Amino acid sequence: MVTREQVREALRGVMDPELKRNLVELGMVRQVDLTGRQVQVTLALTTLACPLKDRIVGDARQAVLALDGVEQMEVRLTEMSVEEKERLRPKEPASGAAADLNDIRHVIAVMSGKGGVGKSLVSALLANALRRAGKRVGLLDADITGPSIPKMYFPHGAQPGATPTAMLPAMSRTGIGVMSINLLLESQDQAVVWRGPLIGRAIQQFWGDVLWGSLDYLIVDLPPGTSDASLTVMQSLPLSGVVLVTSPQDLAGMVVRKAAQMAGLLRVPILGLIENMSYYLCPDTGKLHEVFGPSHAQETAEAIGVPLLGKLPIDPEIAKLSDTGRIEEFGGEAFTSVAERLAAVALPGRPPAVMPA
Amino acid sequence: MVTREQVREALRGVMDPELKRNLVELGMVRQVDLTGRQVQVTLALTTLACPLKDRIVGDARQAVLALDGVEQMEVRLTEMSVEEKERLRPKEPASGAAADLNDIRHVIAVMSGKGGVGKSLVSALLANALRRAGKRVGLLDADITGPSIPKMYFPHGAQPGATPTAMLPAMSRTGIGVMSINLLLESQDQAVVWRGPLIGRAIQQFWGDVLWGSLDYLIVDLPPGTSDASLTVMQSLPLSGVVLVTSPQDLAGMVVRKAAQMAGLLRVPILGLIENMSYYLCPDTGKLHEVFGPSHAQETAEAIGVPLLGKLPIDPEIAKLSDTGRIEEFGGEAFTSVAERLAAVALPGRPPAVMPA
Repeated sequence: MVTREQVREALRGVMDPELKRNLVELGMVRQVDLTGRQVQVTLALTTLACPLKDRIVGDARQAVLALDGVEQMEVRLTEMSVEEKERLRPKEPASGAAADLNDIRHVIAVMSGKGGVGKSLVSALLANALRRAGKRVGLLDADITGPSIPKMYFPHGAQPGATPTAMLPAMSRTGIGVMSINLLLESQDQAVVWRGPLIGRAIQQFWGDVLWGSLDYLIVDLPPGTSDASLTVMQSLPLSGVVLVTSPQDLAGMVVRKAAQMAGLLRVPILGLIENMSYYLCPDTGKLHEVFGPSHAQETAEAIGVPLLGKLPIDPEIAKLSDTGRIEEFGGEAFTSVAERLAAVALPGRPPAVMPA
Repeated sequence: MVTREQVREALRGVMDPELKRNLVELGMVRQVDLTGRQVQVTLALTTLACPLKDRIVGDARQAVLALDGVEQMEVRLTEMSVEEKERLRPKEPASGAAADLNDIRHVIAVMSGKGGVGKSLVSALLANALRRAGKRVGLLDADITGPSIPKMYFPHGAQPGATPTAMLPAMSRTGIGVMSINLLLESQDQAVVWRGPLIGRAIQQFWGDVLWGSLDYLIVDLPPGTSDASLTVMQSLPLSGVVLVTSPQDLAGMVVRKAAQMAGLLRVPILGLIENMSYYLCPDTGKLHEVFGPSHAQETAEAIGVPLLGKLPIDPEIAKLSDTGRIEEFGGEAFTSVAERLAAVALPGRPPAVMPA
């Protein structure tokens, strides 16, 4: 028969991957119950939202089941008190520590150069489409001075969690992890009046100090412009590629071509182009109105040398769902095929992405 | 009777305000013709586009007419050759030298925080309205990474002139002086991949190294965000105030409130709020469609504590004129009253601008 001491001894062999100390030493093993050949262990995690939870539980089970005389092993989870957690916080947390714990397969940035063309919307629709396809998805809002993502996903606001060494993304209803400066501000109207170096550092922290866990896709919503934020993302994050967003105006096309040129300069592949606000379908007459003028999407895509992934109409429903934190409910038909094509270019195993000429 | 030598001697007393040397010494006095009591002088300027032209001619006339025996004085103007001009260029031009020569009465920045809401359009319509009212107007495009202004004014591109110490704004058809990074790039699609400090320096040069001359109004079109460009403009330019631009989405309102907070922090008065893309009038049915959702302009204006200057509809004509460099031809009715109200708040003698609470 196995003893409590043997179980505790076995758990001394299990490391918390974040805190780099064993579960017993960390005070995580709260209770060990034995019923014949069955073991029940209660573990106190620093936070139940920890993306490393499954890994810790799996390691603990494996260690205990390896003991002679153990046939079943059940793990119950509880959370440490704020004080207990505080005690585990390293005095000088290493910056970027979370990055080593993250396992992110594809990082895709959504970019335009131009503002207000719908980068955040495309980012959200892409994240939603990938999530619906069963993927593990994160959404990093790299727009530090004009963050739009939280309002689209959290009707009542949200607060990111924290482990002793890292921030945790806020979880959307469908399970998309979201990190944005607006989740960290006291009021969402608060201005972030920072010069470029601070903007860049904030984005790097969203990458290196956020425990995203295991993700199939991390979607990065870039701000307008080809300055600090875009540079930081393109230089410091291991991007699989960028998706470009434009709107019908030739003016927007010009600025998007600048963004494409930047991606080329920094050798980041462009996955494709999406035109947003291409047209408005009059609900009364069913007629299509090009309210921002005729489309230039095809010629812009050709000028850049990338596939045109699709054109999205203006849909008042979008504004409503975005403003009320319900963007995950959107399923407009015109968007579905574009989102699918987008998800397709963002999926592995497809032909290599096109580099701008 | 006056002699040629006397005329030249008188012109030795006239200084070029930019080059700080007299006209004779600078080699500007090309020919002096005498016919009785009439004097005709040919002056070679560094550039005929020089905004200081009238001042130089006036000073020269005054000096010569003060001579005994001169009753009439005519000045003919010509331009120096590139080589002559080059010789006059100071070896180390003092940065910001043009600022001392400029006489600008009101500097108004158009800001939003959010991208794509129509800052450039509002900047242009404001400049056009002021110009139509007979004012001397300049337009400084402070959006270095996504400059929209030149495309709206110059169908075939434009090149800014230069004096030996300063850049000259490009002149629009109605006489608005325009300066933008896109006037200085080899190709308008060229990306400006600069970090914040360079962005800030470019904007400061557009203020201090551009010879705007005498202006009633300089309109500054800001990029989205509350980072480097906005900070530089608010900290280094003597702003009379800012005009805020929003769009119907609540999301946009949130980002505009951030911009308002920034203006408050930096103690720049807010002149008022304009909502762009408020609605679309169906040309078939005449019905008003709120394609980006219901307006939040009134509540945003109240939250910030500034007057709502008006709501602008979506008008396909705008996109067409903007894309073809003909924005000065636009006279849509819905815009006229807003532009007039805008011009009114931007005019001197009105009640003090409202500061955000």
